[in-house]
Amino acid sequence: MTDDERAIRAVVDTWMSASQAGDTATVMTLMADDVVFMVPGAEPFGKAAFAAASAGQQQAHIEGRSDIRELQVLGDWAFLRNYLEVSMTPEGATQLVRRAGYTLTILRKEPDGRWLLARDANLMSVIE
Amino acid sequence: MTDDERAIRAVVDTWMSASQAGDTATVMTLMADDVVFMVPGAEPFGKAAFAAASAGQQQAHIEGRSDIRELQVLGDWAFLRNYLEVSMTPEGATQLVRRAGYTLTILRKEPDGRWLLARDANLMSVIE
Repeated sequence: MTDDERAIRAVVDTWMSASQAGDTATVMTLMADDVVFMVPGAEPFGKAAFAAASAGQQQAHIEGRSDIRELQVLGDWAFLRNYLEVSMTPEGATQLVRRAGYTLTILRKEPDGRWLLARDANLMSVIE
Repeated sequence: MTDDERAIRAVVDTWMSASQAGDTATVMTLMADDVVFMVPGAEPFGKAAFAAASAGQQQAHIEGRSDIRELQVLGDWAFLRNYLEVSMTPEGATQLVRRAGYTLTILRKEPDGRWLLARDANLMSVIE
């Protein structure tokens, strides 16, 4: 595994653990300022909308796991296909919501060497 | 616009017009042998499954339009974000099915200079 691959896997691991810990501040450091998130049935959105949505979930209990199915480094860019399973109990709710599915994610290496999320298509859906 | 950008836009245009014409053979020439298609609620699939699904739609009447929102060439790779609207009347049906939404698509330049679809995350959903 190359240093770049290791660094990208660390971004994904940190993203998952920070999300579970409700540590939105750390998650925000893992995405480029011009990041674009894409989900079914909605317009693409950026960093500010991501932060706003995360603020509303700060007290939710989240558990997730990630299984990177493909990772290719293309110079200062990379893409990965990930399989995610996330269980969330929204604040005040007793019912667990389970979502699972694939993502296609593009990352970019910043001039300072950090890899950041740049584009993300998230195909997860609610599962029974 | 660079030659690569022009070539990639031509791939998208040809894909759309061939799909509308029911010309699956042409569509198949626009994707890499290791292409991976990703849609919500299903496992990723490849070229053979795409061909099988298209064969079942050969007699459908399809109209679509595409609006490329972003295109970035990264050497011998490129990615684009597209907005698609597709209306389809399945064979024997009278009811039109309309689907719309975004794609995140990764393309690769082959040694012979052709740009081919390599990975595609399709977030389209049925609209009323």
